[in-house]
Order: sequence, then C-alpha cells, then structure tokens
Amino acid sequence: MDVIEAIEARRSIRKYEKRSVPEDILQKILEAGRWAPSASNAQPWNFIVLKDEGIRKEVARVTTYGKFLAEAPLGIAVVIDPRASTHPVEDGAIATQNMLLAAHALGLGTCWIGSYGSVHEEKVKKILGIPENKRLLSLISVGFPAESRKSAREELRKIVFIDRYGKK
Amino acid sequence: MDVIEAIEARRSIRKYEKRSVPEDILQKILEAGRWAPSASNAQPWNFIVLKDEGIRKEVARVTTYGKFLAEAPLGIAVVIDPRASTHPVEDGAIATQNMLLAAHALGLGTCWIGSYGSVHEEKVKKILGIPENKRLLSLISVGFPAESRKSAREELRKIVFIDRYGKK
Repeated sequence: MDVIEAIEARRSIRKYEKRSVPEDILQKILEAGRWAPSASNAQPWNFIVLKDEGIRKEVARVTTYGKFLAEAPLGIAVVIDPRASTHPVEDGAIATQNMLLAAHALGLGTCWIGSYGSVHEEKVKKILGIPENKRLLSLISVGFPAESRKSAREELRKIVFIDRYGKK
Repeated sequence: MDVIEAIEARRSIRKYEKRSVPEDILQKILEAGRWAPSASNAQPWNFIVLKDEGIRKEVARVTTYGKFLAEAPLGIAVVIDPRASTHPVEDGAIATQNMLLAAHALGLGTCWIGSYGSVHEEKVKKILGIPENKRLLSLISVGFPAESRKSAREELRKIVFIDRYGKK
C-alpha cells in the first residue's frame, strides 16, 4: 500500500474479528517498528508481543481507555529505556507509529493506547514484569478490523505558518 | 511508494541538492503530518515552514546537531501545545515521522533534529517567535538528497519479548 495513502486512511480501530493475526504478518509489523529512526540510532526500545489472552485481558482491565484490548486477538507493548536515548519518548512514538502504518497496510486495524505517564502505566508494568527503570510508552491492540471509522483533521491553512509562528 | 518499503529504506539525509522543493510536494508532506493520529484527536501541533534562507541559517547556527539545516533548501519546525493533549510529545513525534515518510516516498531526503528539551529549544523558539507556553518538538531539514546512507538495527530476536518483559 502506498505510504501516503496509508498515512491518510489509517484510523483507530477498536473492534476486531475473532481470527488471529498470522505470524508472518506480525513479523512484518515488528520489522516496521525495528526500522524506526531514533536519536543517535539508540533504539531504546523493546516490543512485548501480548499473545496470551489472559494477559491481554489483565492489561486491558487496568487501563482507562484501553478496555477493547481484551477483545483484540493480539497486543504489542512498546517499552522504552529513558537512559538509553536523549529523546526516548519520541523514539518510542516513532516505532509505534511505524507499526500502526505497517499493520494498516497489511489489512489490520490497530489502536494506540497512550501509556507514558498515564494512570495505568505502573499497573501494566507490574503485570508485564517491566523493570522499574524502563517506561511503558504505548500499548497497541491489533486485529482484523470489524468496524470502519471516519475521522477529521484541521485544514492545513489553520495549522501551518511560514517562517515565523503566527505568520501565514 | 509502498509503506513498508518506505519505513525500511528511509535514512537520515544531511546533504541536499541546491534545487528547491516544489510547492505541491511540500503540501503533500504537510498533509501527511496533518493526518497523524493524536491522543483524543487533539492535534496539538503547528508546522512552521522555514522557507527563508536567512531564518534557516539562523536556526541552524544555534543548534548543536543541526548545522546542516543551513544548507537544506527547506525546513519544517513542529511546535506542540503541551496543554492541548495528554500525550503531546508522542503526538508531535507521530506528525514528524509521517512527514519524514511522505518526504521519502516523494523522493526527498530529511533529517529529524530532536528539539524537545534540547539545549537549542529556547533559542529556536525566540528566533521563530514561538510563544512561551508552546514547545519545539522537532526541526526537519528537507531537500533532494545529495548523499546515500546506510544504517543498521538490532535484530528482532534481541528486542522482542513474548507476553512478559525478558521472556522470549
């Protein structure tokens, strides 16, 4: 799928078919995350694939806005090491977005559950055994979409300036 | 260009041809940024297109790792409003990555100059007239590439865990 088409057509999908995500597709999604750029190429991340249904349900339960993860056939947790990069949050966000785009291109739906600094971060870290000194950047639910969504954005003329903040 | 190909083939490019970036290509890059997902679709961003060579040189001068911006035919500054989103850094990073991928797909080279919390952030904010309560997330240099770069990443088996941190 064309990259610009993928960027513009991807939507947050929270309802999924029951069927599981084939292993070869999962590997392609993880590859897309692996190839994210990071500050000084530090790659300050780990990806935890949530294959076990019980663990997905346990994780979903402690989140405020991620209950749908319980019904997704797959999840991915992006963990960052804040000491390993000068820009760990940006790095982890890029890896997450790459996986969202790859998943969309491969026919899957995803939803990004923001986790860094959220009320569920520490609870999920305990469930997944993530060390104290690492941070949970995001949770991604993954599955074949069972809904279609629309979304909207501000027009460019409202958000773009030329040469100086506020100048059009 | 295929999205997975773009994700895996994109490299940080710091040397550019002199020719300028056509306006229609610039608009497509900005569109890719505009369509980024953000927490609760808050879209907490503005994009400042750095068209003026003098301003690009002034901005480049105050950065530590972005001197090459002075020689790029175009720049984009991504500004975020930390009060407008629960995850403004991630949101701004996604918008930046979308623009990098779109630029690559359109034949351009870019380099992400990490700016959030960097030593140059306040200096660039002053030059570009960015309000006190906004933050500079990134600077992107853009131009037709005059170099080709290689890069590497850790193998998946080193960074991926299953169901629990540390479990393979």
